[in-house]
Amino acid sequence: MINMYNSGLSIVRYLAKSNIIVQGRYASQALPQLSSEKYDVKRKNFGTVQAADINYFKSILSEQRVVTDESDVLPFNIDWIKNCRGQSKVVLKPKTTEEVSKILAYCNEKRLAVCPQGGNTGLVGGSVPVFDEIVLSFMLMNKIISLDEISGALVCEAGCILENVDNYVRNHNLIMPLDLGAKGTCHVGGNVSTNAGGLRLLRYGNLHGSLLGIEAVKADGTVIDCLRSLKKDNTGYHLKHLFVGSEGTLGIVTKLAIHCPVLPKAVTLGFFGVENFDNVLKLYRSAKASLGEILSAFEMADREAITSTSKNLKLPNPLSEYPFYVLLETHGSDEEHDADKLNRFLNKEMDSGLILDGTVTSEPAKMQTIWNLRESIAGAGLLDGYIFKYDVSIPIVKYYDLVPLLRQRLGSKATRVYGYGHIGDGNIHINVTVPEYNKEVSSLLEPFIFEEVSKLQGSVSAEHGIGFRKPQYIHYSKDRSALGLMRDLKTLMDPNGILNPYKVLPDDV
Amino acid sequence: MINMYNSGLSIVRYLAKSNIIVQGRYASQALPQLSSEKYDVKRKNFGTVQAADINYFKSILSEQRVVTDESDVLPFNIDWIKNCRGQSKVVLKPKTTEEVSKILAYCNEKRLAVCPQGGNTGLVGGSVPVFDEIVLSFMLMNKIISLDEISGALVCEAGCILENVDNYVRNHNLIMPLDLGAKGTCHVGGNVSTNAGGLRLLRYGNLHGSLLGIEAVKADGTVIDCLRSLKKDNTGYHLKHLFVGSEGTLGIVTKLAIHCPVLPKAVTLGFFGVENFDNVLKLYRSAKASLGEILSAFEMADREAITSTSKNLKLPNPLSEYPFYVLLETHGSDEEHDADKLNRFLNKEMDSGLILDGTVTSEPAKMQTIWNLRESIAGAGLLDGYIFKYDVSIPIVKYYDLVPLLRQRLGSKATRVYGYGHIGDGNIHINVTVPEYNKEVSSLLEPFIFEEVSKLQGSVSAEHGIGFRKPQYIHYSKDRSALGLMRDLKTLMDPNGILNPYKVLPDDV
Repeated sequence: MINMYNSGLSIVRYLAKSNIIVQGRYASQALPQLSSEKYDVKRKNFGTVQAADINYFKSILSEQRVVTDESDVLPFNIDWIKNCRGQSKVVLKPKTTEEVSKILAYCNEKRLAVCPQGGNTGLVGGSVPVFDEIVLSFMLMNKIISLDEISGALVCEAGCILENVDNYVRNHNLIMPLDLGAKGTCHVGGNVSTNAGGLRLLRYGNLHGSLLGIEAVKADGTVIDCLRSLKKDNTGYHLKHLFVGSEGTLGIVTKLAIHCPVLPKAVTLGFFGVENFDNVLKLYRSAKASLGEILSAFEMADREAITSTSKNLKLPNPLSEYPFYVLLETHGSDEEHDADKLNRFLNKEMDSGLILDGTVTSEPAKMQTIWNLRESIAGAGLLDGYIFKYDVSIPIVKYYDLVPLLRQRLGSKATRVYGYGHIGDGNIHINVTVPEYNKEVSSLLEPFIFEEVSKLQGSVSAEHGIGFRKPQYIHYSKDRSALGLMRDLKTLMDPNGILNPYKVLPDDV
Repeated sequence: MINMYNSGLSIVRYLAKSNIIVQGRYASQALPQLSSEKYDVKRKNFGTVQAADINYFKSILSEQRVVTDESDVLPFNIDWIKNCRGQSKVVLKPKTTEEVSKILAYCNEKRLAVCPQGGNTGLVGGSVPVFDEIVLSFMLMNKIISLDEISGALVCEAGCILENVDNYVRNHNLIMPLDLGAKGTCHVGGNVSTNAGGLRLLRYGNLHGSLLGIEAVKADGTVIDCLRSLKKDNTGYHLKHLFVGSEGTLGIVTKLAIHCPVLPKAVTLGFFGVENFDNVLKLYRSAKASLGEILSAFEMADREAITSTSKNLKLPNPLSEYPFYVLLETHGSDEEHDADKLNRFLNKEMDSGLILDGTVTSEPAKMQTIWNLRESIAGAGLLDGYIFKYDVSIPIVKYYDLVPLLRQRLGSKATRVYGYGHIGDGNIHINVTVPEYNKEVSSLLEPFIFEEVSKLQGSVSAEHGIGFRKPQYIHYSKDRSALGLMRDLKTLMDPNGILNPYKVLPDDV
């Protein structure tokens, strides 16, 4: 039976936001192993930062914005899932595009490698150095430049935190077209560089569609100014897309213009228990047909994902235990119409048995509590010890096949295996938790999981990117001709290979 | 006063579809002047097609698919606004990607220039040869390959006609995410290559967002296979965007995968008379707020655009004369809810005086009649003799400024000057008609209009592209660094410059 949600759960903020949790644990735990040792990587033939280089950087940025103290540099060397650790000795914090340009021109000249870093919420080690790359942090490039309220065009610097920008545009009756668990920490420049997807791609589309303009700096310091904020501009090659999803290896995003849709006047959330995956799929088809243009998210999580998150983080689950859970959200302009559509859908699917139980709410605090449970899945497994995280796209009818397959393959070697994600986008996240990093489990998982995804014509990285962790698996989703063109583009744009080395491109291409 | 639309107008199909009109006029009119003479262009140092080349092409394609008869080749040499005429001697009609690959590898080897051609509905001379480039027509690559009804992913060949594909997916409760006046003739491969925008970009977004995958052939014949049909795939560089909007100069699109949204259950059209442009803008803001997620198009046309189209093509105008007209469309999943929202909007804006008079209809034939009037504006001016057509983006508050400015500048030298377009996208089409092509009017228009657009931070080509006609004006919208990167990409992808030469890139970059 459906009840309007009425418990008094407290709001727990996104775990992904709380790098504090991760960073707080360094003191009591061993540091993650060095990436170079853990993954047996050889340093490439770059220059090494010298005192004279540091002095040059200080001359551009001032003393305070050149960080060299080892303990201050440490957090920039470690990714938030504690999987990777680099060995950088220096973090630079530019405030302007001109400073970024000067730094890159100098590094290119001296063959010094650079690792751009936004909010450092990446999950494939793309945002931390591997060896002694200079970290270029965008935390001080965080200004909102302009907002056109009629067209919805926002222009801002790359280091703005997504949630801050979203709050800003909400005050002008607009929303950011993307939302993700890490929004309290991640930078919009990082979102663009990694082509972040997130929770509402189903409704508002991807960044290639939303991005209006970009300013980026090439490896040699050349500033590419494509920062127009027009919705239509067919004047020559659409250069901005080179910087979307190339993870800082072709150039570094410094500013962006993005289209913000109208803030919905009515938002409603449903959280449902479902008997099996087949019914989850049927429910998705039904929601698409019944809710049409107001459907803004359709997420699923299996029992293990929800119950372990609830247990590990002491977050209450508003429903009892079900094999599958569906979180459905609507964004609309008329509360009554939306409620009407949703009620019709609910009545139909309660009668049909696709929905076993559920809760529906429009109260912001209660919606936040349910979203929080969903979004906390990503990090909750950390408390089991170590997480192997996979983020794959699979044609929708086979969406959940890999989870039972992995459970069978790993048996008692894994603490948990669970799946959750954005079913409307065919994007499932599969997490495998173990007490600590374990080579045997790793070798049972990889490349097995990528081979299976490839057989299903899926993507071995749906939204997290390739980063440091996946270049050797990219060929499962990109053929030789595409990899050859990637290499050609890299050579064209960054001939010395100083931008985010050891990332994205496999060595053998 | 608003009346539900009830006249019995007959449906006239899109003029843009009727190449027949244009082609039918060759007999009674002089052929358009050769582009090379009209615009004083020098032939580049390409090879000339020899009998041996023709024999080679026949060996790949068979005799019938190598067209060399002068009168059969003629229509492929002329664009539909009769502005450009090339001098090609041969048209090739491949049926497979492999054939395209073989043709390009051969042409690249022999330095033979190639002009890819889809439906030949372009407005900037990009789809016709300038000298003796080999025309590569996609008219026989017109197969639909697959459709996933749950995810909405359609895969098809580049030469499919947009309207045919749209009809196909409509039978499966989906629609194509783009629609334009030329849909009965244009090819989806051409749409992608030119990043076509059209009538419903406001609702369904642009092709960079909708395109899921692409197969394209590079100048050297290498097939780049990025034809996955996943909504999320962050495995390396997002190569497909290189081919979107680069107008066949970086590679030739042979297949594509595109995301089709759900077919709306309810469609309603409103056609309104408005007092002045300021009120058009106010009405747009109000529609965005009131109609939110169901707003699918918001188009404007000035009095001259509507009355001259109505007169030239004998199409009835359902309203009397007003200074401005607005066409507003909704796509929704519930007819009652949509009517409710629209009525509320109408009552409010009739009371406020923003809408002076209008008509609202949900009957397909009547909606078609109104759309037909709007879509016919593009071609109706041909009957005045010759049209200068401009397609620019301008920040929305200045959207209409150029039209009165041009009227004043041209005075009686122009038959008519009118503006119409996609106000929701900041994209206005400005047409200037004259009895015949006239250098004085041309020099009063260009570069003046581009300078004005540049001052307003607009785009000198919003959706029509650069093609043959605008390379010399591209610098008004692209700075030197961006043009330099365009040139680098061209050299990388097509070092011999055989793909669609004389187009897009200015010579002096």
